[in-house]
Amino acid sequence: MSVVCFLTDFGLEDDFVGTCHGVIARIAPEVRVIDITHGIAPQAVLQGALVLRNTVPYTPAGVHLAVVDPDVGGNRRAVAVRSADGRVFVGPDNGLLMLAADELGVAAAHELTEERYRLADVSHTFHARDIFAPAAAHLAAGVPIDALGPAIDPETLVRVEVPKARAGRSQVSATVLDVDRFGNVASNAERAQLEALGIAVGDRVEIRLTLDRYYAVRAETFADAPPGELILYEDSYGLITLAISQGNAARLTGVSPGDELRIATT
Amino acid sequence: MSVVCFLTDFGLEDDFVGTCHGVIARIAPEVRVIDITHGIAPQAVLQGALVLRNTVPYTPAGVHLAVVDPDVGGNRRAVAVRSADGRVFVGPDNGLLMLAADELGVAAAHELTEERYRLADVSHTFHARDIFAPAAAHLAAGVPIDALGPAIDPETLVRVEVPKARAGRSQVSATVLDVDRFGNVASNAERAQLEALGIAVGDRVEIRLTLDRYYAVRAETFADAPPGELILYEDSYGLITLAISQGNAARLTGVSPGDELRIATT
Amino acid sequence: MSVVCFLTDFGLEDDFVGTCHGVIARIAPEVRVIDITHGIAPQAVLQGALVLRNTVPYTPAGVHLAVVDPDVGGNRRAVAVRSADGRVFVGPDNGLLMLAADELGVAAAHELTEERYRLADVSHTFHARDIFAPAAAHLAAGVPIDALGPAIDPETLVRVEVPKARAGRSQVSATVLDVDRFGNVASNAERAQLEALGIAVGDRVEIRLTLDRYYAVRAETFADAPPGELILYEDSYGLITLAISQGNAARLTGVSPGDELRIATT
Repeated sequence: MSVVCFLTDFGLEDDFVGTCHGVIARIAPEVRVIDITHGIAPQAVLQGALVLRNTVPYTPAGVHLAVVDPDVGGNRRAVAVRSADGRVFVGPDNGLLMLAADELGVAAAHELTEERYRLADVSHTFHARDIFAPAAAHLAAGVPIDALGPAIDPETLVRVEVPKARAGRSQVSATVLDVDRFGNVASNAERAQLEALGIAVGDRVEIRLTLDRYYAVRAETFADAPPGELILYEDSYGLITLAISQGNAARLTGVSPGDELRIATT
Repeated sequence: MSVVCFLTDFGLEDDFVGTCHGVIARIAPEVRVIDITHGIAPQAVLQGALVLRNTVPYTPAGVHLAVVDPDVGGNRRAVAVRSADGRVFVGPDNGLLMLAADELGVAAAHELTEERYRLADVSHTFHARDIFAPAAAHLAAGVPIDALGPAIDPETLVRVEVPKARAGRSQVSATVLDVDRFGNVASNAERAQLEALGIAVGDRVEIRLTLDRYYAVRAETFADAPPGELILYEDSYGLITLAISQGNAARLTGVSPGDELRIATT
Repeated sequence: MSVVCFLTDFGLEDDFVGTCHGVIARIAPEVRVIDITHGIAPQAVLQGALVLRNTVPYTPAGVHLAVVDPDVGGNRRAVAVRSADGRVFVGPDNGLLMLAADELGVAAAHELTEERYRLADVSHTFHARDIFAPAAAHLAAGVPIDALGPAIDPETLVRVEVPKARAGRSQVSATVLDVDRFGNVASNAERAQLEALGIAVGDRVEIRLTLDRYYAVRAETFADAPPGELILYEDSYGLITLAISQGNAARLTGVSPGDELRIATT
């Protein structure tokens, strides 16, 4: 177990990520760190949990260090969670880890209390550096999970709820989950919900978003529509997503995560 | 051949880059990935091709994975191109790879069709993850290029055209190719074109840019002019570039890639 | 000595950082590079020096390559500085390296003049690629520091001055040193200065910042205040910092590094 996959909301403008890399390299020089992303919106636990869940299948088995931690310094626990396939998820007990871990099945969970596996001085505000990165490094270097602290009942771990899209007779009311660099707008609408409304690839649908109305084509990929046209497609993680072929749908519509997206037949 | 140099327009806010790192590490754990940049402007194939060409001489021989791919999911081919010196360029057949590959000489080209060297499920919109990164990983791990798919006639590979600056009797009409973080504005003007106009280091030149007129000094480096003054110099990749000593020329002038830049004698 | 820790103001939008990674990998393939950050504000030498000093204790011993270099191409020297504990700092002689190096004690300093340890063609404007990264790679690969050029008297190395906060009878006048991604505003006020005014954890203080007045609670961590309230706490590097629990203090106050921050008893 010699890989740590690392995901945070720290950005790369500051030294937070680099400092954690340094801490890991001091403890476990032979361990490789793969940065999944540090671009989770600040303190957006749900977004972080979704990205972690979506990307785990594409990463090597090992330790998954994830930190989006609005309650750092408060009462939330620091935990390590082992999944049935032997991966270990390290981070705050606020739901961030659990969409991924529950999907794989939780085999064990421990609280990170053992001082030997923390830095000597633990700050009030940078537990990624002082608690989480050291734990991940020690785990990747071979320390067994039960050495890091007492076992926790997995049932007591905090979960986040993923909002569900609601389907009516002629429309689906979905929530925007994510907006990416290309302006693609991912929602929680499900393919089956569109199919139940009779919406097939090639059909024209009506979109309601941030007080405005648009028309889009249900497509499979960007090339299915002329440049500049809105399309509704299933993205590479299976999310129903609004995009503009060779354009930026988020900029056009002014949408943000959490906004309502309504999709209706025409 | 154990290094993959990686260049895209994906940015680092999303998980696209990290997911590709994960895919490569799963296939070829011993291969090292060097991120050249992921800051190419979205879908800017020409800019990506120029940066790839400029940086290749500074990178280890190995596999060059480059993805700027506005036509993903359409008819453009996925290719691997081997240069005369043994490097292999992997990416979409839209010209992105070819400024670099043609400079080195193309020895062979293959289409990436072999399913064994793709992920099991290929999405319509994320071929970097599903086709290109797996191909790069297998190549770096030692799979021969001709195992990845049928040979292609190199003549049929798509090329991009780099716009050329035009020189008149008293001025050069150039195109802005790139604006960097420091606000330095690189153009396609050539040193020989300036010299033909009799413009030498230390001379004052007139600049026309985005409807405005400026004066700059032909210089060798930032230190040749007092802070705040515009200079015109040959940048570290050989491009004639407009800058402000200890300032930001792009912010002053409001310029974007593609804009015209006219340089005239005074 | 097989790690290079790398810090610049280059950002990641351009290829500057990736090209330096390439140069290092060509010279010393077995050396690992850890990116501390490349988000130092352009040409902000003091900020870079502070981040370097703060992060060194969390990084492996090795070579520290740091480049914030507004006078590139001018007369400033290129140097390598060895600290008493055996680390080597490589970069421009403009003070960037010296907060860190002086804290550890300077054992030796050399100017980087030896052509064998530079690239063959040295540009006027990209010494990170042509001089500093090659030197760091050779040092990390085992070249002794005195092979890189003549010894320099450490006394002649340029230092930056960290502004000091001034304490009056009822207030501290401090300077903003840094604003991070979460909008936390770090200052040079010292904990002892607050204590001398009788300000204890839990107390309410008055803040004067950018012409406005605010009230904050002296706290230990974000969780000590309800969401939305301003707190004043000692950050994880020991700096007295203004923040909003689960919010963005910099956005609220419009502050920038260099601004005055006054903290007064109420």
